[in-house]
Amino acid sequence: MYQSPIRKVQILKYQEGQFSQRTDYLASEEPLEIQLSFGATEQRMQRSLAITMRTPGQDFDLVYGFLFTEGIIHQRSDVIQMRYPGNQLDPEAQENIILVELHPHTNFDFERLNRHFYTSSSCGICGKASLEMVQTHVHFLLDPQNPQVAPPTLLRLPQLLLPQQSLFGQTGGIHAAGLFSATGELLLLREDVGRHNAVDKVLGAAMQKHGFPLRTEILLVSGRAGFELVQKAIMAGVSVMAAVGAPSSLATELAEAHNLTLIGFLRNGGFNVYTGKERILGT
Amino acid sequence: MYQSPIRKVQILKYQEGQFSQRTDYLASEEPLEIQLSFGATEQRMQRSLAITMRTPGQDFDLVYGFLFTEGIIHQRSDVIQMRYPGNQLDPEAQENIILVELHPHTNFDFERLNRHFYTSSSCGICGKASLEMVQTHVHFLLDPQNPQVAPPTLLRLPQLLLPQQSLFGQTGGIHAAGLFSATGELLLLREDVGRHNAVDKVLGAAMQKHGFPLRTEILLVSGRAGFELVQKAIMAGVSVMAAVGAPSSLATELAEAHNLTLIGFLRNGGFNVYTGKERILGT
Repeated sequence: MYQSPIRKVQILKYQEGQFSQRTDYLASEEPLEIQLSFGATEQRMQRSLAITMRTPGQDFDLVYGFLFTEGIIHQRSDVIQMRYPGNQLDPEAQENIILVELHPHTNFDFERLNRHFYTSSSCGICGKASLEMVQTHVHFLLDPQNPQVAPPTLLRLPQLLLPQQSLFGQTGGIHAAGLFSATGELLLLREDVGRHNAVDKVLGAAMQKHGFPLRTEILLVSGRAGFELVQKAIMAGVSVMAAVGAPSSLATELAEAHNLTLIGFLRNGGFNVYTGKERILGT
Repeated sequence: MYQSPIRKVQILKYQEGQFSQRTDYLASEEPLEIQLSFGATEQRMQRSLAITMRTPGQDFDLVYGFLFTEGIIHQRSDVIQMRYPGNQLDPEAQENIILVELHPHTNFDFERLNRHFYTSSSCGICGKASLEMVQTHVHFLLDPQNPQVAPPTLLRLPQLLLPQQSLFGQTGGIHAAGLFSATGELLLLREDVGRHNAVDKVLGAAMQKHGFPLRTEILLVSGRAGFELVQKAIMAGVSVMAAVGAPSSLATELAEAHNLTLIGFLRNGGFNVYTGKERILGT
């Protein structure tokens, strides 16, 4: 089955004081697992190298580029073959796994690489492990009706964030995450070159001050709402998350499954409601 | 030593057909290593959990948020103490390492976590390993005078990219990377929700078509130029990289060290030259 790089969803669009139903298109975000087959002919090994969250399409290009820029291959001929493992029974799995057969002469120390690569899912890599993690760790049950947020409150949030963004003002190139009360008061603001770090900082500060869940607060992020940011919001028991940019397909699916109100494109006097419209007044 | 979240640099600014020398401010990007001390009182263990590239400042907030959203701690009291290891001799290392003492009762399976977390540096996490990797792997020596690129050619690039961005047009939320000739012809374009994936896709496609290095091509990215994207460009032997958004401090340092021409804020009829001005005509 061909996976589309775009997913069609039904949303509520708020513009000029009115809600209307619309069809919207989201960039797909799906995990891709890269499996390597390597070693001398008589002792081939097969191991999972990495899982990355990507938009399906040109997957072989992605894997060539990834393997090269990570220093695993040095020229095209280091790869004998790349393929989706056709003998898998689950069609979803077939598309989200690529098996790379490295040439037996490709010099490659898996253990050394593995030591260098252990790290975190907050970047969106390791998405599959993250999906499982969210399922097993979340224990905050949220009230689908609370808090109730008025559209004018949402519209005000980005303007409240920007003047406080001291680093953005000076550099023009940094992400911010803000925590607001349901009536729109700025409670906490953090900035970082990494979107996930800005969210980690604001959630870490909230944890030290008040603890979790953040049931009645609104989390605003300055960029797009990717899967990994929605995951963090859900972990902290946030009920309403808003992004100045677009959400991804997987982000909206995760928000839907965990009863998070997800707002996107909060700018220019309007916004889109992707999930959890019951918390937005007037919908 | 307090590390500033902002770094001051001297740049060349191109505006209305003129170059001028300016002082510019970059968001700092530095690795932070999180070390955990954990286990029962009589058998404490200390292990490195993750290295993340972050903007220095509010590091304790970052680590609380990271540990919580990754499911390692569940409340503030799971952490006895967080500190920079003051007994380190290297002052740089002291600032970029945080030691977290977990409460002996904190339920924590390092091995299970480690299995989940092995992944890639392409997201900017694992930056330290990446820095070493770039040092040991790069073997393309670039000519500091070539290619020669005219400012009007650079100004045209974003306009050439946008009409071809089929996914962006439909979703408004996806990153692009494009490869251009030195005279500004679009050679390759790839899109992805992940910035690093878009670059991996375009480099992977180029590798399959022409091989590396990409000495005479220009790589354009639709967002900011973080450390990890510059790293990928250098690996592939790119001489000129341009970003619509801002570069980070570490990105410009890496570009400088490897003789890459780095252009930022390529929009609204202007751009900034951060490194390698010898390749830009008229500088």
